[in-house]
Amino acid sequence: MIRVSIVGGTGYTGVELLRLLAVHPEVELAAITSRAESGRPVAELFPSLRGHVDLRFAEPDVGLLAEADVVFFATPHGVAQATVPELLARGVKVIDLSADFRITDVGVWEQWYGQPHACPELLSEAVYGLPEINRDQIATARLIACPGCYPTSVLLGFMPLLVEGLVDMNRLIANAASGVSGAGRGASVNNLHAEVSDSFKAYGVAGHRHLPEIEQELSGLAREQVSLTFVPHLLPIIRGIHATLYGQLVQGAEEIDLQGLYEQYYANEPFVDVLPSGDYPQTRTVRGANVCRIGIERPQKRGMAVVMSVIDNLVKGASGQAVQNMNVLFGLPESIGLIAPPLLP
Amino acid sequence: MIRVSIVGGTGYTGVELLRLLAVHPEVELAAITSRAESGRPVAELFPSLRGHVDLRFAEPDVGLLAEADVVFFATPHGVAQATVPELLARGVKVIDLSADFRITDVGVWEQWYGQPHACPELLSEAVYGLPEINRDQIATARLIACPGCYPTSVLLGFMPLLVEGLVDMNRLIANAASGVSGAGRGASVNNLHAEVSDSFKAYGVAGHRHLPEIEQELSGLAREQVSLTFVPHLLPIIRGIHATLYGQLVQGAEEIDLQGLYEQYYANEPFVDVLPSGDYPQTRTVRGANVCRIGIERPQKRGMAVVMSVIDNLVKGASGQAVQNMNVLFGLPESIGLIAPPLLP
Amino acid sequence: MIRVSIVGGTGYTGVELLRLLAVHPEVELAAITSRAESGRPVAELFPSLRGHVDLRFAEPDVGLLAEADVVFFATPHGVAQATVPELLARGVKVIDLSADFRITDVGVWEQWYGQPHACPELLSEAVYGLPEINRDQIATARLIACPGCYPTSVLLGFMPLLVEGLVDMNRLIANAASGVSGAGRGASVNNLHAEVSDSFKAYGVAGHRHLPEIEQELSGLAREQVSLTFVPHLLPIIRGIHATLYGQLVQGAEEIDLQGLYEQYYANEPFVDVLPSGDYPQTRTVRGANVCRIGIERPQKRGMAVVMSVIDNLVKGASGQAVQNMNVLFGLPESIGLIAPPLLP
Amino acid sequence: MIRVSIVGGTGYTGVELLRLLAVHPEVELAAITSRAESGRPVAELFPSLRGHVDLRFAEPDVGLLAEADVVFFATPHGVAQATVPELLARGVKVIDLSADFRITDVGVWEQWYGQPHACPELLSEAVYGLPEINRDQIATARLIACPGCYPTSVLLGFMPLLVEGLVDMNRLIANAASGVSGAGRGASVNNLHAEVSDSFKAYGVAGHRHLPEIEQELSGLAREQVSLTFVPHLLPIIRGIHATLYGQLVQGAEEIDLQGLYEQYYANEPFVDVLPSGDYPQTRTVRGANVCRIGIERPQKRGMAVVMSVIDNLVKGASGQAVQNMNVLFGLPESIGLIAPPLLP
Repeated sequence: MIRVSIVGGTGYTGVELLRLLAVHPEVELAAITSRAESGRPVAELFPSLRGHVDLRFAEPDVGLLAEADVVFFATPHGVAQATVPELLARGVKVIDLSADFRITDVGVWEQWYGQPHACPELLSEAVYGLPEINRDQIATARLIACPGCYPTSVLLGFMPLLVEGLVDMNRLIANAASGVSGAGRGASVNNLHAEVSDSFKAYGVAGHRHLPEIEQELSGLAREQVSLTFVPHLLPIIRGIHATLYGQLVQGAEEIDLQGLYEQYYANEPFVDVLPSGDYPQTRTVRGANVCRIGIERPQKRGMAVVMSVIDNLVKGASGQAVQNMNVLFGLPESIGLIAPPLLP
Repeated sequence: MIRVSIVGGTGYTGVELLRLLAVHPEVELAAITSRAESGRPVAELFPSLRGHVDLRFAEPDVGLLAEADVVFFATPHGVAQATVPELLARGVKVIDLSADFRITDVGVWEQWYGQPHACPELLSEAVYGLPEINRDQIATARLIACPGCYPTSVLLGFMPLLVEGLVDMNRLIANAASGVSGAGRGASVNNLHAEVSDSFKAYGVAGHRHLPEIEQELSGLAREQVSLTFVPHLLPIIRGIHATLYGQLVQGAEEIDLQGLYEQYYANEPFVDVLPSGDYPQTRTVRGANVCRIGIERPQKRGMAVVMSVIDNLVKGASGQAVQNMNVLFGLPESIGLIAPPLLP
Repeated sequence: MIRVSIVGGTGYTGVELLRLLAVHPEVELAAITSRAESGRPVAELFPSLRGHVDLRFAEPDVGLLAEADVVFFATPHGVAQATVPELLARGVKVIDLSADFRITDVGVWEQWYGQPHACPELLSEAVYGLPEINRDQIATARLIACPGCYPTSVLLGFMPLLVEGLVDMNRLIANAASGVSGAGRGASVNNLHAEVSDSFKAYGVAGHRHLPEIEQELSGLAREQVSLTFVPHLLPIIRGIHATLYGQLVQGAEEIDLQGLYEQYYANEPFVDVLPSGDYPQTRTVRGANVCRIGIERPQKRGMAVVMSVIDNLVKGASGQAVQNMNVLFGLPESIGLIAPPLLP
Repeated sequence: MIRVSIVGGTGYTGVELLRLLAVHPEVELAAITSRAESGRPVAELFPSLRGHVDLRFAEPDVGLLAEADVVFFATPHGVAQATVPELLARGVKVIDLSADFRITDVGVWEQWYGQPHACPELLSEAVYGLPEINRDQIATARLIACPGCYPTSVLLGFMPLLVEGLVDMNRLIANAASGVSGAGRGASVNNLHAEVSDSFKAYGVAGHRHLPEIEQELSGLAREQVSLTFVPHLLPIIRGIHATLYGQLVQGAEEIDLQGLYEQYYANEPFVDVLPSGDYPQTRTVRGANVCRIGIERPQKRGMAVVMSVIDNLVKGASGQAVQNMNVLFGLPESIGLIAPPLLP
């Protein structure tokens, strides 16, 4: 059994980790910390976990955390970097769901997150935790930086096109939309039901923190610097991200069978599902499950490739992906604990 | 392994059965039938099941069904009764999710469902499949009639009060509200998103088909004829039933510790959760899970007991309960295949 | 033209007042105050009002407010009572949408609101602003206390039964459900979209602040002390209240034509609509409009009367009712400025 | 007073026309037809109109319709073309909300709508009813073809960029999302609440019927043939369209102040609202109102212009626009009957 502890269990990625880990056959939950809720039973804050999780929130404490085999950070950015070095020094593996170690260029990180980084020397060691790109490095990592939710959907959607060099790398567009759980569980007027429901809007159009992360990884796939226009939108749903991706096909690429390319590219991936030709994904078909479903179309047989990619932002976009990383890291079957089908309707 | 077949797999209780059975460790899915979709892959109709269910819908056929150990009927009323006798004759167990065998008095059944019953002789044999009432009879039954979704929430909520004789049996009130999946997957103007969302209404107030079923079972618990006012409402949510139950406490009952009574009554039930005093249940805390959560209050310490009871109408209100019944019927641990926590948020 | 000022325009009842008053043919908006947003254009906070309201929020100031003919308070309880005496002294009429002057017994008010009342001498002068009860007193009032949203729906629904003495006054039940705009525009985890949507729950069951207000007014209608069990619920919708009311018919009352009674009782009320027999109201059929729609049923022809009553909590339950009161107060046609049909779908 | 009749009043554009026309000060409702609901009171089908519309649905009959000054068609495509010639011959004006007369090239129309056109000779006479483009022609027209909902949002959003020739006309992208009322009021599994809510998907990506209409009008604005990639999505909201438009700026265009351009371009349009720099529109800020709100951004100051454009699909996208056209056609103030602010929250 792997002993797992969680830092920051009061947000949505925290409760989602608990939901998944509570029934993971190889995991023993050791501790979950929250400064604000210390001493309170987890199941009191999240009644859905009554009967499944008996822990109480504990004060964050490195000594306590170091008793685990692996520590998940489900915290806002800036928190993990303060504790990770000591945990690594004590031989504990770290899977960070926050943004602290996703960007390899410390200057870029500090510019977008507006604060100095506490351990820039770890940025090059941290492995970007998208198994579909970095499975081998994850298996031997000490520190895994789980991708953001938008980046997961955009990267998996664009990957075959970019690796194969089929689209104009200077004019990529990602029109994405996220359910409101992506905004977290903090009190906020903007995320009230009466403000969000029965409405739709774009936000962060001038510049969103996921942009540099996506461009960094897309550039790696393309083996050249790409330029992406990224426009996120807020959906009046709880869970789900839908990315609609646009790539102008380069000369000659119009002859290629994109459907076949995608099917072949992901044929062996347990958590990427390429839909049949003509089918487009819906966010509800991934609700609660660790899967990315993808549809491909070339409208009117013209020169624009359109890829639609959906994930559950809390699962394949966060906590499920973190568990998938853990499975790889500890040499377990990659799907263990992640096989429950989506909840539909 | 238990070989399971399903009749009528194109509705919401059908797809929910598939979701649960696909990962049940003791079940092998043998066949699923649908006249309308015969030949079509199940996962084409329900993309959420891609990678989980490889079956195609088959033509309904008694010979095919008789190869199973147990057959679930997830059909509209009137369908199961045409086939059940032959299945029983061939030694196949039947778990019927429809209304065909819930009411023991054939006259009452025919009055509310407006058609003659095809095998009234089975009505007395059929066991009403609420394990919290009939666990022992279920274990040895051939034919199980799963309760309706409203009845499950109302019966579990009222049970301790009625068994103990604490309330006026002539003035019971059940004010209940259901998510729209309870209305099924048929095309209907009334259930369109643009008609249902951002709204709320009562329906069936003059008389709803679940009324005689609830009164029959409540009367059994009370060991006298009860009278219930039952008012269902339509919620703009997908899953979930919330029943708010009112019982006028009889002389002397005001001294009783209702909270303690409920906690004790359900202490050993794996799928009934009595919340701490002062907590009230929310439908989202049971989403996707086979559990009924209950809260009890006596407003202003006056003489009215108010019980709030929530279930997921597709799980504890239908398909999960059917699986629970199957577990009991085949001598399996009652919780097997039903341990995944609810999906929250 | 009536010069109108508004205190506290940043909440939902404030913006709703602005929506209605901006197109009211007899109203000139003089000022709207908000300490927090002072100096900010109203249309910046509420872009829906761009092109309709040119005002900026002003600092609350009695001198400024006293220039108006009437001042609306759309504030939390406790605010109006600090300013109302001076406004009345200066000859300004006051329409208070808060709870400050709804309860005539100062002891009851102070018990439920947990603070001393600043001007208890005005409690007996204030007129409870439900025109369907107090039209004549409103016409000559200086200070109008607009009813709460739940009370409006419950009072209009129960009124004919209580005035006629047809039900058991000791066992009244109001099972009510409100859209989330009723909880206001304050930042709060409990009212986040991800917490509220796709769910349903009861709250305040042990005791809700609208209970004493409702019982006070019901008792006035019944001309005796009544006892009400009041259970509010939270609906995942923006606007709308649905009250399901239960009254046990007294001896002899079962012979009475309740449908005819209600139709006759409300025949001349411009804002109460009794639906045809067998029709039940939906909250969406009153969305945005100043109307209460009512349906009556006697399930199974037994002894329980069930009344369903719906309003838009922000209109007939708050701001629309306030405008209706203003119309009466200033001798205008009661419907002026309130004739736009509901928004459906 | 203008005598108005409506053909096809049982859908969402029909009831929306009634909502607007019922309080239009210069309109008298003459007749509303529906073959299916003939004889039934309108307010029985749409209880929101109780007290506002006293008409009953009538059988469609040219003689009856010809008594009106103007006839609105709120019908599926194919219906208007059968009756319009005779109405025009009798001197009745026609405002068609369907697709019958939007496309000037009969071959294109017949290809996309899959049937022969009954009166192709009228296609060149019909005026495309977007007053912001064709105000003068509308004023003198006999037959007005109201734009589709998607086209309205896309055309108003792109117009300044195309008229000024600032973007690459071969790579325009419109990523649009519509509330489910846009799919109409017909019974359909795909539009059930349990299928649509809490989900999001693209549809019609290979080719949507609004594509040729949009390209026709965009090409007119650009004075050259344009190529558009148009991807519609289905939003789990009732009303609202949000179009996110992408245009690659041509050489030199990056120096232009797009914000100033848009503000100037629409300065005198009563129903187009350009938001301040940095503000993006939300569909809820136009709910129920005849207005298009637009935001402009150039992400990261790179070469891609992003325009966000929102409308209420039933108002500025259909029935409100039809009334706006009527106002122009009959020489009324363009805003009469259309001044009510949006409903927010």
